[in-house]
Amino acid sequence: MSHSLIVRQDLDFLLHDWLRLDEIADRATVDAVIDLSERLANDQFLTHYKQADVEEPTLTPEGVHICPPIREALKHYADLGLFSAGFSEELGGLNLPYLACAASFAYFAAANLATSAYPMLTVANARLIATFGTEAQVQHFAVPEIEGRWFGTMCLSEPQAGSSLADVRTRAEPDGQDDLGARYRLVGNKMWISGGDQDVSENIVHLVLAKVAAGNEALPVGTEGLSLFIVPKYLPDGTRNDIAIAGLNHKMGYRGTANCLLNLGETTGAIGWIVGQPGQGLRQMFQMMNEARISVGLGAAAVGYRGYRLSVGYANERLQGRPAGVRNGPQVPIIEHSDVKRMLLTQKAYVEGALALCLYSARLVDDEDNADSANLLGLLTPITKTWPSEYGLLANDIAIQVHGGYGYTRDFDVEQLWRDNRLNTIHEGTTGIQAGDLLGRKILRDGTGMKVLEDRMSATVDRAAAIEQLSGLGAALGTAWARVRDTAAKLGAGEAAHIFDNATPYLWAFGHVVVGWLWLDQAVLALQKNAASEAEAQFIAGKVRAARFFFECELPKVDSWLAVVSAASTVAARAPLSTFQ
Amino acid sequence: MSHSLIVRQDLDFLLHDWLRLDEIADRATVDAVIDLSERLANDQFLTHYKQADVEEPTLTPEGVHICPPIREALKHYADLGLFSAGFSEELGGLNLPYLACAASFAYFAAANLATSAYPMLTVANARLIATFGTEAQVQHFAVPEIEGRWFGTMCLSEPQAGSSLADVRTRAEPDGQDDLGARYRLVGNKMWISGGDQDVSENIVHLVLAKVAAGNEALPVGTEGLSLFIVPKYLPDGTRNDIAIAGLNHKMGYRGTANCLLNLGETTGAIGWIVGQPGQGLRQMFQMMNEARISVGLGAAAVGYRGYRLSVGYANERLQGRPAGVRNGPQVPIIEHSDVKRMLLTQKAYVEGALALCLYSARLVDDEDNADSANLLGLLTPITKTWPSEYGLLANDIAIQVHGGYGYTRDFDVEQLWRDNRLNTIHEGTTGIQAGDLLGRKILRDGTGMKVLEDRMSATVDRAAAIEQLSGLGAALGTAWARVRDTAAKLGAGEAAHIFDNATPYLWAFGHVVVGWLWLDQAVLALQKNAASEAEAQFIAGKVRAARFFFECELPKVDSWLAVVSAASTVAARAPLSTFQ
Repeated sequence: MSHSLIVRQDLDFLLHDWLRLDEIADRATVDAVIDLSERLANDQFLTHYKQADVEEPTLTPEGVHICPPIREALKHYADLGLFSAGFSEELGGLNLPYLACAASFAYFAAANLATSAYPMLTVANARLIATFGTEAQVQHFAVPEIEGRWFGTMCLSEPQAGSSLADVRTRAEPDGQDDLGARYRLVGNKMWISGGDQDVSENIVHLVLAKVAAGNEALPVGTEGLSLFIVPKYLPDGTRNDIAIAGLNHKMGYRGTANCLLNLGETTGAIGWIVGQPGQGLRQMFQMMNEARISVGLGAAAVGYRGYRLSVGYANERLQGRPAGVRNGPQVPIIEHSDVKRMLLTQKAYVEGALALCLYSARLVDDEDNADSANLLGLLTPITKTWPSEYGLLANDIAIQVHGGYGYTRDFDVEQLWRDNRLNTIHEGTTGIQAGDLLGRKILRDGTGMKVLEDRMSATVDRAAAIEQLSGLGAALGTAWARVRDTAAKLGAGEAAHIFDNATPYLWAFGHVVVGWLWLDQAVLALQKNAASEAEAQFIAGKVRAARFFFECELPKVDSWLAVVSAASTVAARAPLSTFQ
Repeated sequence: MSHSLIVRQDLDFLLHDWLRLDEIADRATVDAVIDLSERLANDQFLTHYKQADVEEPTLTPEGVHICPPIREALKHYADLGLFSAGFSEELGGLNLPYLACAASFAYFAAANLATSAYPMLTVANARLIATFGTEAQVQHFAVPEIEGRWFGTMCLSEPQAGSSLADVRTRAEPDGQDDLGARYRLVGNKMWISGGDQDVSENIVHLVLAKVAAGNEALPVGTEGLSLFIVPKYLPDGTRNDIAIAGLNHKMGYRGTANCLLNLGETTGAIGWIVGQPGQGLRQMFQMMNEARISVGLGAAAVGYRGYRLSVGYANERLQGRPAGVRNGPQVPIIEHSDVKRMLLTQKAYVEGALALCLYSARLVDDEDNADSANLLGLLTPITKTWPSEYGLLANDIAIQVHGGYGYTRDFDVEQLWRDNRLNTIHEGTTGIQAGDLLGRKILRDGTGMKVLEDRMSATVDRAAAIEQLSGLGAALGTAWARVRDTAAKLGAGEAAHIFDNATPYLWAFGHVVVGWLWLDQAVLALQKNAASEAEAQFIAGKVRAARFFFECELPKVDSWLAVVSAASTVAARAPLSTFQ
């Protein structure tokens, strides 16, 4: 079994010691699911990692064909009940907490991000229907997804409407009513649809954002005109719905996930059933989007994590050079060189930090009935999506660098990890979109999450204060946090038209402070443990060192980003277009 | 003709206004060569950019086959005299300054980095032979290269000797003497040989580092035991030399350049002629390596530059969203959004800064008889290699982000530019190797370049002081420089074993200060020009804005890197290996 996936000791520390998963789930059940996930990820997902990159999805008149081992892997995934694990027992699941499902998913994403995208989307799709759909919709559409027989998609973007969902033009005309609810005929083009077609599942449940308009009515304006429809590939009577696969996107990486342009309603109109009422579409879709955003972050963290483990393995084996000042004798493994250690520790700080952030947010999902947790989750979602996507990618870049020329060849996996991970700052809302969400919706419009975050950081700082090995870190975090908080307040009080000019550097600074906090919190906890073995003592020392590294080498960057934001620099925002002539 | 390559107005500004190329070359000749280069790059290099990525080199028993349009393009390149342009008239050249050749090369690298690698290596190879070879060697080997009929390689690395050249094991046994000099038989394996075989040129001139040892003698120890040999694919009598192509490396990008594993001497020993005397190999090879390092930086800058121009083009055309607060009406080009402007201005600051740095260094090559210039060139070479490689790549990353999902597909060029550019922080000495060279050899061992750099920076600061639009920038540069300089002095006075612990962050800081200086210097000059047209006024304003952006948004990072170096952080360097268990 490959040891390049998530280190189990690390995961157990995060899940059980840190996030106290035991309080909401049976430890034995969780352990069994994680064992199973680790094994299946190694045996069925990792094994076709390269193959699915080379053998891209193809489109024929029958539809999209996927590299066969993907089908095999997902069949095992379904047979082992992993589609259902997070659903209630009434729906055939184990009622596992979201956190446990996220931990399971991390193994699959690390092993093969593209293959794991199918169940990720399917589960989020089913959860949306289970939340907002009618009983008939749940039984007809969600249950087969929960069984892993049908897969799901999210159909938001259109060629002219990517980040700007207000510009969706897919039109839904009322077409009566049946057992599955109010029926509509949809006409429009949906772009960037992951899993938009494939020959793996028996049916595909598309969740489609569209605008209701009868006859010659104009489409409603703005995102509040969006409604959500269930549009299956095969209708209940077994016939094909009016959905044409207009093309496949040929991506740089992440290739196993077929990405399609769908034309709805080329002939009679695609039949769809509305979820809830007209105009609720975006609000409903945000449940799926928020879940997908956490999953994107988690996938990015996991891909970064594997690159880190691969480069540790390589650095232990590759002999090159000697310690400074030594001329003779055998070459040493490159892990002994300080610059290589720097590269490995940077990766460790990034990927273990990113994984911790994603699992922390997953734990908040399980605690969403608590208003504080829900508010904090809202605040952290854009960070959870973005930070791992940016720094998981950077970790993969460093993993290539550790491998040297070998890392640039397709004989090793690190180049593909880097290509795969590059999508994550783009889909489910680009970094720029997340920055606007963080600063606008989550901080300036509704700042309740900020107070919760501040309280939790303060608690960490208080606990760290008593620990000599962490001296100085709490104070550094407090200072950095105060700057981040005060900068937002200053922006909010400033000129409205320019609040978002430097939202992205603000998000970078915010993300680093959050991850710094989580590192400190991990270090506090690690040092409170009594190491039961030498291996555990080394694990604890590793956590503390990575935390210190993050504070010494990464946290200072916060000031450099905030300087720009705080000075309300308009150098970019007010650049006339002729600057780029 | 595509306008995605280097902006001619920018290049003319750098070459003529800024670097006063006219003082060492005839303007009309230079203009003609640049015109020609721009046209040929567009018509013959850009045209097979995608094709050469898809149709990788293949290896058959006859040797390596290259995608045919590469051959066509290089034939034109030879026919137009571009191999020879930088050589003396006696050798058939135009005696063009290195700077003019670099400017010409920038067009080809921007259009197709992989294809342009063949002439880049060939010219550097011929220049080495012209410098250190005998008259017979020059006539026999260098002249056909200068004519573009034969191509050249540099054979340094071996499977066990990448960064550690002291570990080269290729063995050269004396084998008499002939018209071409002292002859040897070589046995060994050479790895990562760009252009190691191809079916384009009539012959290939390998420059091979090896160690001289007769009979059962042990190989000499260390890099001072390295000697340099000319080892042609075809011997003077037309027979094949004993060089087997043992394999091709399959790279993530940069695919048009065939990269080979060569086995020398599988049967009788490969015949080679020594250049100069035994033991001079590394010193001689450094001429070619230093030239290649500047070319790597220039190639990286050019690839970054094209990504920038492509993303400007895309941002002008792609409609998405509306200005803040506007709900109705048509969507606007994304270039009007402040976050997109930020991404474009960041790219501009990176790629125009990188190009300026490379051309500045090229100008120093032309002035190498001046000791100050030579010392400054030595100091700046690791920066010229590294900074464009790191920031050209980052610019390409941003170019993808500007393109959104489209940028992640192979329908656009930006993903390939990113893949191509990723090699540049690895080959010709990794970033870590460059950092050691900068701090060790160029600053602490021989700091003469530092004084020259300081004087030139001071002169820029003085000129900037008189210009109101640049207020504050000179002082900021002075402060940053003083920190960089003093940090090195502090390191030199510190514990010897730990001087290099943070050499890489030091190089990052140094690089940013150098590029900040060159931005300020460009801005000073731009503002001293009298704009002859509206377009020129806009060009000047763009330069000044990019300079200000660099100072506001980039220069503050220097402190965050130096904080680590200055504190002599050992958090990474002293990490026990169990940290990464």
